[in-house]
Amino acid sequence: MSPFDLPPDHPFGPHHLPYGAVSVGEEVHLAVRLGEHALDLATAATGTPWAPELARPTLNAFLDLGPSAWSGLRSWLQEELGDPAGRERLTPHLLPLAGRPVHLPFRVRDYVDFYASEQHATNVGSIFRPDGDALTPNWKHLPIGYHGRSSTVVVSGTDVVRPCGQRKGPTDPAPVFGPSVRLDIEAELGFVVGGATPVGSRVAVDEAGAHLFGVALFNDWSARDVQAWEYVPLGPFLGKSFASSLAAWITPMAALEGARVPLPAQDPTPLPYLQGADLFGLDLTMEVSLNGTVVSRPPYRTMYWSPTQMLAHLTVNGASLSSGDLFASGTTSGDAVQERGSLLELTWNGTRPLTLPDGSTRTFLEDGDTVTIRATAPGPDGSVLGLAEVSGTVRPAV
Amino acid sequence: MSPFDLPPDHPFGPHHLPYGAVSVGEEVHLAVRLGEHALDLATAATGTPWAPELARPTLNAFLDLGPSAWSGLRSWLQEELGDPAGRERLTPHLLPLAGRPVHLPFRVRDYVDFYASEQHATNVGSIFRPDGDALTPNWKHLPIGYHGRSSTVVVSGTDVVRPCGQRKGPTDPAPVFGPSVRLDIEAELGFVVGGATPVGSRVAVDEAGAHLFGVALFNDWSARDVQAWEYVPLGPFLGKSFASSLAAWITPMAALEGARVPLPAQDPTPLPYLQGADLFGLDLTMEVSLNGTVVSRPPYRTMYWSPTQMLAHLTVNGASLSSGDLFASGTTSGDAVQERGSLLELTWNGTRPLTLPDGSTRTFLEDGDTVTIRATAPGPDGSVLGLAEVSGTVRPAV
Repeated sequence: MSPFDLPPDHPFGPHHLPYGAVSVGEEVHLAVRLGEHALDLATAATGTPWAPELARPTLNAFLDLGPSAWSGLRSWLQEELGDPAGRERLTPHLLPLAGRPVHLPFRVRDYVDFYASEQHATNVGSIFRPDGDALTPNWKHLPIGYHGRSSTVVVSGTDVVRPCGQRKGPTDPAPVFGPSVRLDIEAELGFVVGGATPVGSRVAVDEAGAHLFGVALFNDWSARDVQAWEYVPLGPFLGKSFASSLAAWITPMAALEGARVPLPAQDPTPLPYLQGADLFGLDLTMEVSLNGTVVSRPPYRTMYWSPTQMLAHLTVNGASLSSGDLFASGTTSGDAVQERGSLLELTWNGTRPLTLPDGSTRTFLEDGDTVTIRATAPGPDGSVLGLAEVSGTVRPAV
Repeated sequence: MSPFDLPPDHPFGPHHLPYGAVSVGEEVHLAVRLGEHALDLATAATGTPWAPELARPTLNAFLDLGPSAWSGLRSWLQEELGDPAGRERLTPHLLPLAGRPVHLPFRVRDYVDFYASEQHATNVGSIFRPDGDALTPNWKHLPIGYHGRSSTVVVSGTDVVRPCGQRKGPTDPAPVFGPSVRLDIEAELGFVVGGATPVGSRVAVDEAGAHLFGVALFNDWSARDVQAWEYVPLGPFLGKSFASSLAAWITPMAALEGARVPLPAQDPTPLPYLQGADLFGLDLTMEVSLNGTVVSRPPYRTMYWSPTQMLAHLTVNGASLSSGDLFASGTTSGDAVQERGSLLELTWNGTRPLTLPDGSTRTFLEDGDTVTIRATAPGPDGSVLGLAEVSGTVRPAV
């Protein structure tokens, strides 16, 4: 199919234009995706104001330019695509995606993971603290988050080696070491940040949008047994730091204008620094597949905190932002069982195994399992966006 | 004093040679410190095998070269310094440090903070969980750690703006927002990592030394009120992420050979992946000054875990290392009251204020307070090393 004649409901039509990085010979070039082609920005954007930044192998320099550059490039691309002469100009810069390696399109600076789904936090609290309140007392007052390991964020398609670590069940006399036996996924949405701020300043809720470049599906692989033993009192560390997978194509926030929805009611009212006019959820439905079978459809619209609130909270203490910062939403889980975004919740800590079409069952992941997360969202003018998938296969422990 | 005639007990004599980055006109050059001078490596090392890496504004490329390059450069410098003709060759590359801006000498990739002092962990546990065991059950089985914010690691001398955030005392009906009222320090040692490893591999205890480039004093500023309210269940976030200060000069591990001491006895015996021949503590005595008055002398030799164990633990799940990774020891506290490395412990959570020579008292830090951490350690051949100080002044909240 010509990349210029995609139907309006095509997930990667001209209303989408997500950003990625692809191999071109020995080099890595920035690109936007159009159907099953990559439009090579390193060559196509020659002569535009953003040519120097787009000639790099990562988006970081372009992210530094801020929202006027981001919307400028998008407008220019859409004008070219809407004009027969423009299409002719772009044609030499189209590269088929089939068989072409993709790369993380930005150097991840600081990576923060939030915990913004009330349903997920309630499920996890019920499983791990059955005798206490499911939500911790702080949960509805602030978007809980923690820093993760930025250098182990890998691009979709990268195999994930089963991590080793310590685990100790409550009745075990001592911890044991070995491959994780409770390897899980977390279906999340990642937000890519652009525009640096100085240390000591803060970004208000209504300024945060200017730092939100785009989103990409994110799988925060989790070794539940390692995590359970290590995380008191300083939080998750090795249970998460072995790998986190990010989709190869970043959907610009501008393509998601039609997907914005109001947040669930926030009660109690958050403190003033978490209030603002620019509060939103996203009507984005995820689909989690395990070896090709859909096992869950988490709805992002149920998330409690707005991404603008997460960014305002992250910076309210004066922490600076850098272009290339990544923050993720935390596991997305809806009200229904089949809307839960982790195996921990789907199998209720392994007590209710899933049965796959081949008759096998799963509590947690086995070696060779492939997990793929996809999502769709309303696009502009009644179209449909398909977010690029994030996928990974579990390899045996070393 | 000539930088070539420093007495044997000079903290920055030719047996030390710590690495830094200094302003040279509009540029930033890598340098080693010799007394009160910087030897400009960008110019002095022309013609050496490491010249391309030393011509950069950060050490990251040099860190990538690994231990043979690190020891090669150090040997070459010491030969030049021991030879009159070599001294003459180096003389044009000496720059006075007085009035010259210094910079972080490496781009921090991932930053992890450990919690390796048994005395500190016991004190904190006793203060915050008076009815439970002071140490959590995992503490003696693994070096507890968590990821911090790498982009807010700042060089010594940078002012620290008092962070704002949420706090809620146990009897408060709801959280309030404002400047932290319990701003604290943590006296730590930072370890600078060189040599990348691939995702999915691990670094054994006895391989870890090849990735330890050097150490620098580190102050992990902490807003105790923010931290107490936010940290359950996912660990410290805004209570720490506003700023962490690192000394401007990195002491090579090679200069600390004479400071190695055995670890305290580890009981129970750690799991095999935390065992090895290359286990060591460092006989390094810190000195914490508040507005010029020494308030504590934390002894690093009391730390429970070896830096090689920390690095082995960090990677045992397959997490990769990058040149420029930084990990810190956690607060250093000895057995005695006057050896505690945080105000939280020194004032026992504010219940026993310190009195300063001007008659004022402190529970936590006030605006305008300057905290400086220094340290000495045995150097080669009976000499004394003085680690470069880490210092910062608290500015009022914005």
